[in-house]
Amino acid sequence: MLQPEVCARRAVCPNARGMKIEGISHRSLWLAEDGRSVHVFDQTRLPWKLETLRLAGAEQVAHAIRTAQIRGAALVGVATAYGIALALRDDATDPALDAAAALLLDARPGLACLHRSIRRMSAALRDLPIATRVAAAYAEAAAMAEEDVAANAAIGRHGRALLDTIAARHGAVNVLTHGHAGWTASVDWGTALAPVYMAHDAGLDVHVWVSETRPRGLGAALAAWELGQHGVPHTVIADGASGQVIQRGAVDIVLVGAERISRLGDLTNTIGTYPVALAARDNGVPFWAAVATAAVDGTAEAPACPVEERPSTEVTTMTGRALDGSVATVRVVASGSRAANPAHDVTPSRLITGLITDRGVCPASEAAIARLFPGQHAA
Amino acid sequence: MLQPEVCARRAVCPNARGMKIEGISHRSLWLAEDGRSVHVFDQTRLPWKLETLRLAGAEQVAHAIRTAQIRGAALVGVATAYGIALALRDDATDPALDAAAALLLDARPGLACLHRSIRRMSAALRDLPIATRVAAAYAEAAAMAEEDVAANAAIGRHGRALLDTIAARHGAVNVLTHGHAGWTASVDWGTALAPVYMAHDAGLDVHVWVSETRPRGLGAALAAWELGQHGVPHTVIADGASGQVIQRGAVDIVLVGAERISRLGDLTNTIGTYPVALAARDNGVPFWAAVATAAVDGTAEAPACPVEERPSTEVTTMTGRALDGSVATVRVVASGSRAANPAHDVTPSRLITGLITDRGVCPASEAAIARLFPGQHAA
Repeated sequence: MLQPEVCARRAVCPNARGMKIEGISHRSLWLAEDGRSVHVFDQTRLPWKLETLRLAGAEQVAHAIRTAQIRGAALVGVATAYGIALALRDDATDPALDAAAALLLDARPGLACLHRSIRRMSAALRDLPIATRVAAAYAEAAAMAEEDVAANAAIGRHGRALLDTIAARHGAVNVLTHGHAGWTASVDWGTALAPVYMAHDAGLDVHVWVSETRPRGLGAALAAWELGQHGVPHTVIADGASGQVIQRGAVDIVLVGAERISRLGDLTNTIGTYPVALAARDNGVPFWAAVATAAVDGTAEAPACPVEERPSTEVTTMTGRALDGSVATVRVVASGSRAANPAHDVTPSRLITGLITDRGVCPASEAAIARLFPGQHAA
Repeated sequence: MLQPEVCARRAVCPNARGMKIEGISHRSLWLAEDGRSVHVFDQTRLPWKLETLRLAGAEQVAHAIRTAQIRGAALVGVATAYGIALALRDDATDPALDAAAALLLDARPGLACLHRSIRRMSAALRDLPIATRVAAAYAEAAAMAEEDVAANAAIGRHGRALLDTIAARHGAVNVLTHGHAGWTASVDWGTALAPVYMAHDAGLDVHVWVSETRPRGLGAALAAWELGQHGVPHTVIADGASGQVIQRGAVDIVLVGAERISRLGDLTNTIGTYPVALAARDNGVPFWAAVATAAVDGTAEAPACPVEERPSTEVTTMTGRALDGSVATVRVVASGSRAANPAHDVTPSRLITGLITDRGVCPASEAAIARLFPGQHAA
């Protein structure tokens, strides 16, 4: 049940395309009517409330990234680009550009997508006359958003072919996903869920096992909500149950997103991806990572940024809907016990069946990545 | 912070031995002053409230097992035995014994420990004159409780030797545990945590990574609480984080409990154990299961009981302490999404470094199990 104010917001959401919320198509980021600021959904409020945020300055973008109001590699990348554009409105000199980049990077320095976006914006703007930088920044940010939508649609098509093949054999397809790589994690479509949406829309009998993905409940709160809004049959399981569900033969294919793919094909993704990959491998179930070109670090081996340790309160507490309908946060870890909260893990390429990219599918190998993404930037 | 009524209850808890709550030693099950009923702690209220239940009949025992107010293979086994004894007080004939067994089995038919306890009680009582059955039933239940305490103490000693060896090499020991196999899951000491308590008491520098163990938060709520009460340093992590913590070299040894060990050495345990074992194997970290003789099915291969599917509300909701101090339950899965909740998974023997039993340590192999447990019953 979404809040009534959603209805009022539909009018301000100018997306004729995009994924569906209560039957209406939306993107997850769009330029506001003032032509400057951007609108996004507050993902920390979902699925209990669909609240639109308006980000009118780089500080607001940084805050939204830091608090995970917006998350997902693609969405954070595009929002970061708009954050640069917003900062340059006040001051478009080199020092101001550097300051905005530092401010945004500091929001979540462990996110490869943030580093990539900053690098791309700097490269696009640095050599331009100051007077043309603001317009160029908005143009570059808009281009990144359109590229994301196009890339994800292509991932959806390539991935759907994999699901078609399974359906041709089994009649139905059981997907397992971990984390949340749906449309609210990108500008539209999502990565790992794009093939699922396309298969479902084409009439395939597809069902998704959604692992809860603690600590932030990205599966239970976001992926499940998205799939439900789109009418895709799905079942939520505890993170620890993925192994058993795979082991008992209930999963045909695992689809996950990607924060980053290294030159060697190693996958940095939401914490908990690695154990799912181990269980898939141990049971001969294909494990695919859906990854847009932007997330391929074709020239880098080791991660270019540190492992992010997020606030321990994400582990010690959980937020949900109380019996009286209010949204409440409860402490779920014994009083006095401390918690650790690494945000990502690395799944070695040897456990990955292949990558579903916007340029087609390929093995997660150095040679295949070099072939499909020649000269791809480091990040 | 426990409730004030704890202080009042200390007087009625006649355990001079036993693990500590706020510095006072307790067992987790003890005969009430009336000499008939048994006291246990309501584990669904922990860690927020230490509430003692008095179970005065077989129906009450079955209810406590069904709702997981009491859980853990050893504790459920002993409580079941007392449930039989309580039922026989009213009627000690064979049909009444059969009815009580059926009632208790129906509480959680997927628990091997329940089957084992019923089988043992039936075997002990069936051939006795009706008039002596009640006394014999209480004696058998008490014997099971004492055997559990002795077995767990022995497991603690054998397991501590493993931790000593690691500490001799590294100076400190980092244990990772999944599920909850501490003293509240048994009559005393616990299985997987017994070596930890003994090592800590002996002055070893031991730290425990506690995986939350959703859906019921057995790690976050119970293991963390127990370890905290006993003063053992520990850190709670999301279930998905175990792989990353093992991968980054922060774990010296994994210790888990056992619902059941098969003839071939396969381990049935709390859901999520299997992925932890996969991560341990993938990183060369030893993975040990602590298992009392009672849980070894030395003659059985396949599980003798079906996989338990627990209520989906355990996945869709979480209970914890709200900001105002009250205990509240919140829904954490998007409205309308359904959930599945398998209670156990099976870790194949090939992933298990060894078993820590009350008879010593041994490989998880058919030959070693047959040697250490000759003629051990099937269950």
